[in-house]
Amino acid sequence: MNDVEKMKRRGLMLVLSSPSGAGKSTISRELLKGAGNLAMSISATTRPPRPGEQNGKEYLFIDRDEFDGMLAEGEFLEHAEVFDNFYGTPRKPVEMALARGQDVLFDVDWQGQRQLKRNAAGDVVGIFILPPSRAELERRLHTRAQDSEEVVRKRMAKAFGEIIHWKDYDYIVVNEVVEDSVAQVRAILTAERLKQGRQTGLAGFVGAFRESR
Amino acid sequence: MNDVEKMKRRGLMLVLSSPSGAGKSTISRELLKGAGNLAMSISATTRPPRPGEQNGKEYLFIDRDEFDGMLAEGEFLEHAEVFDNFYGTPRKPVEMALARGQDVLFDVDWQGQRQLKRNAAGDVVGIFILPPSRAELERRLHTRAQDSEEVVRKRMAKAFGEIIHWKDYDYIVVNEVVEDSVAQVRAILTAERLKQGRQTGLAGFVGAFRESR
Repeated sequence: MNDVEKMKRRGLMLVLSSPSGAGKSTISRELLKGAGNLAMSISATTRPPRPGEQNGKEYLFIDRDEFDGMLAEGEFLEHAEVFDNFYGTPRKPVEMALARGQDVLFDVDWQGQRQLKRNAAGDVVGIFILPPSRAELERRLHTRAQDSEEVVRKRMAKAFGEIIHWKDYDYIVVNEVVEDSVAQVRAILTAERLKQGRQTGLAGFVGAFRESR
Repeated sequence: MNDVEKMKRRGLMLVLSSPSGAGKSTISRELLKGAGNLAMSISATTRPPRPGEQNGKEYLFIDRDEFDGMLAEGEFLEHAEVFDNFYGTPRKPVEMALARGQDVLFDVDWQGQRQLKRNAAGDVVGIFILPPSRAELERRLHTRAQDSEEVVRKRMAKAFGEIIHWKDYDYIVVNEVVEDSVAQVRAILTAERLKQGRQTGLAGFVGAFRESR
């Protein structure tokens, strides 16, 4: 058995969730740069492509009939409706990625994670990113000085509606300094890759110690 | 709520096990140097101190009556008999360390880990260190050229008796390059510290987002 065999492992599904304003996008972007073998999940959607978007790159653009057909066949790991458009994560590409030891990154909310955990429990690792404080979140949600109190209050309520589900997640990262947060998420990824159950090549590797005993 | 409150967390019990020759001692030593807030667990033992050993530093030296008394009172998290001497991990110092957010490192075998998991399940994180190959393990167990085949065979059998329990552990690190293994164990420690259930200060921190909503 060579090193490649020994290191065989099943990929994992890394979920990053956070309220808007917590810095998740920056962390995802940095993570995809540095952590080899991690790719963003590509969702299917019924919304029309925006200028510059390529089918199969940002999204898989499908029509409503195709979406309903896939849904009926149980081909989505999770799905959601947002402003009359439908979004879903096709199961097959994720399953193929995991089987070849590729990790997949998901940018979904707590409802998306709940569906992923229901459909692929042992493969999902959920990280919730928290803003460093209420004051800082409020500051970030005040994007324009002329926003009314009412608009900011609504944004805060929406953020809190996400934050309240923090206990659904395996790990919590409080994003004070973005470099630290990226390092913490990377450590989680490294650790989860070393989980006993994910290192599928180890059974054979360990067996080889016994052979000529 | 300030940052100190927010970052409050329960410590964890990090178990490192391996067959002799896998490089565990080097990894432990490096880990204790670099990972702040991690301290080696101190066992109680009935064996007499060796020259240079201080009571309360390497071991807590107690007599057989004291040992039996502590055992009867359920004061050990795990215990074992080795060559007519008894060893045990007193529960109280570990419990106090965990409560103040201090992590504790344990150098025990699979039987020790099994007892620790039985007595402190949610606090135990077990890492098994594997040698990089059977050939390399055999080389390391051949400490002196004049060792008989029989001696080496016995050592290999003992090593395999440990290795066969690899599935009892949460994480598996194959120790090819010691620096990489140290980095991997550190990543596991970082990740486990970020586990949702261990960050005991977060409930209050998250609650504070709601207050003046």
